[in-house]
Amino acid sequence: MKLATLKNGHKDGRLVVVSRDLRRAADALAIAPTLLSALEDWSRCEAPLRALYERLNTGDVPASFDFDPQQAAAPLPRAPQWCDGSAFLNHGRLMETAFNMAPIPDFDTVPVMYQGASDDFLGPCDDVALPPEEALGIDFEGEFGVVVGEVPMACPQRLAARYVKLLVQINDVSLRALGPREMKTGFGFLQAKPSSSFAPVAVTPDELGDAWCDAKVHLDLHIELNGAWFGHPNGREMNFGFDRLIAHAAATRRLSAGTVIGSGTVSNAGGAAGSACIAERRAIETISRGAPRTPFMSFGDRVRMEARLQGATVFGVIDQRVVPAPTLKD
Amino acid sequence: MKLATLKNGHKDGRLVVVSRDLRRAADALAIAPTLLSALEDWSRCEAPLRALYERLNTGDVPASFDFDPQQAAAPLPRAPQWCDGSAFLNHGRLMETAFNMAPIPDFDTVPVMYQGASDDFLGPCDDVALPPEEALGIDFEGEFGVVVGEVPMACPQRLAARYVKLLVQINDVSLRALGPREMKTGFGFLQAKPSSSFAPVAVTPDELGDAWCDAKVHLDLHIELNGAWFGHPNGREMNFGFDRLIAHAAATRRLSAGTVIGSGTVSNAGGAAGSACIAERRAIETISRGAPRTPFMSFGDRVRMEARLQGATVFGVIDQRVVPAPTLKD
Repeated sequence: MKLATLKNGHKDGRLVVVSRDLRRAADALAIAPTLLSALEDWSRCEAPLRALYERLNTGDVPASFDFDPQQAAAPLPRAPQWCDGSAFLNHGRLMETAFNMAPIPDFDTVPVMYQGASDDFLGPCDDVALPPEEALGIDFEGEFGVVVGEVPMACPQRLAARYVKLLVQINDVSLRALGPREMKTGFGFLQAKPSSSFAPVAVTPDELGDAWCDAKVHLDLHIELNGAWFGHPNGREMNFGFDRLIAHAAATRRLSAGTVIGSGTVSNAGGAAGSACIAERRAIETISRGAPRTPFMSFGDRVRMEARLQGATVFGVIDQRVVPAPTLKD
Repeated sequence: MKLATLKNGHKDGRLVVVSRDLRRAADALAIAPTLLSALEDWSRCEAPLRALYERLNTGDVPASFDFDPQQAAAPLPRAPQWCDGSAFLNHGRLMETAFNMAPIPDFDTVPVMYQGASDDFLGPCDDVALPPEEALGIDFEGEFGVVVGEVPMACPQRLAARYVKLLVQINDVSLRALGPREMKTGFGFLQAKPSSSFAPVAVTPDELGDAWCDAKVHLDLHIELNGAWFGHPNGREMNFGFDRLIAHAAATRRLSAGTVIGSGTVSNAGGAAGSACIAERRAIETISRGAPRTPFMSFGDRVRMEARLQGATVFGVIDQRVVPAPTLKD
């Protein structure tokens, strides 16, 4: 099943079911007005949403309409929580080596994870507006994520995968000029992590077939920067599965239905698959050539991210520019 | 004006107006069903809520009823964001000195702030349920906070105070055994910061009179642990005002209406005022006696927090136990 949220002037948008090929959509209002409300009442909503999805795929919904990703918000424009791991250790090790950072304690055995803002997620084609006056080190991070149902406190890893309701694809926008200072405070990322963006469609795990395996998304994530190949790392090299990340996030708290857990930048060893963020490519350049060569993003630059299964798009496409935010007037 | 949220089985509860003396309450459903919805439409809701408040104070609301803090949820049981500063530098310096921590860069000039979970705030009398199996170093942190309207990205400090709609009083529950490792990762607090609790009533700044000054809450915060005095530090020694904290949080993002910004543990120099958290008292003990003497909380322990103005309670009382969460069954 594939679900999306269309913009309608309200914070949470309106829920639609989208056909597997992402061509058609059908309003889900009669089942649930928003994706968050559906997730909060998933046991009641899942079956009728799936039934609508099956009819949509067979062309059997007269009131269906063309699905326009330009009109899509993030599947959850505001989510209860956003906890983002860094579960591809290859990425972290490259960053440590290149920039001579102190090793993170227990990096191989305990996931690292930060809490991000979840109240203002961007849609797949939305401009990423950022303060105009600084060299911020604007970067993208291509990630996969899961949306969970309500997870009880102290949920162990062995029980965690059952709470995965939907899979999503994310651009975790990052400001590299601000990250190191925030890491050194020990309080973690805040200004370095503005609003994240989401591919238009959230999908149930069964849509991936065998590519959803060990609580990981075994798909290449194709990244283009201004129309040029940047990388296509595969999610299978994730060192902690989403089950482990959910258990980590829920260790001392409940997770409300609709919480989003991110994988961190998808990253593969060896370098042939390229990178899913500029910082990692700069790390590789620093290690191999002594200095970074690839600049961070400038205003007007575009990033495109897509995962495909047997040639067909899974989550749809993130394709967005970074732009300067308007200056505030008194 | 004083506002509270009563539990009604729904996540966001129901909005009530509370009399200045916290004795009576009146349903605000005809104006806004929840505090979040009121904050999202504040320009429409503020005047009728204030009118209801004035009538309640003069005994002129026939349908009013006794206000029972036991029935109160947090004023915002789920808020869009929770960004918690550490704006009392005295607290941070004591912690650094006692535990030989590396100094935080720019600590005197740039606020430190972490992003916490905002989807599951606790009410003033709710038990704080925590995983049963570990020595977690359970601690409270007595804080003040502000609830803002929608703040635009890159809002400068000089414009920030205008977005303060409500003041709140907070117990930022903290697990000290988990904090140091999370600080060392650079990704910040996650497991170390379970759900925070709130005093029953959120108040507009005018309720404080001169005690709301320089965007700081100039009130003693009285803390008792198991019925014994623990401290009464005053909020006036905050080194960064809430205007600065709002500007810090909004530097690279919009803040949705209803975002909560915290002061960090209220802390006064000199020691005579005691402390608003156990960790700080342990730091003082370590500095003066070579080792901490005060233990962290055990299950069953109670903490009480209250701020008063001319002898009368302002936000009502946080009075809650810590208890072990039930163990999960497969």
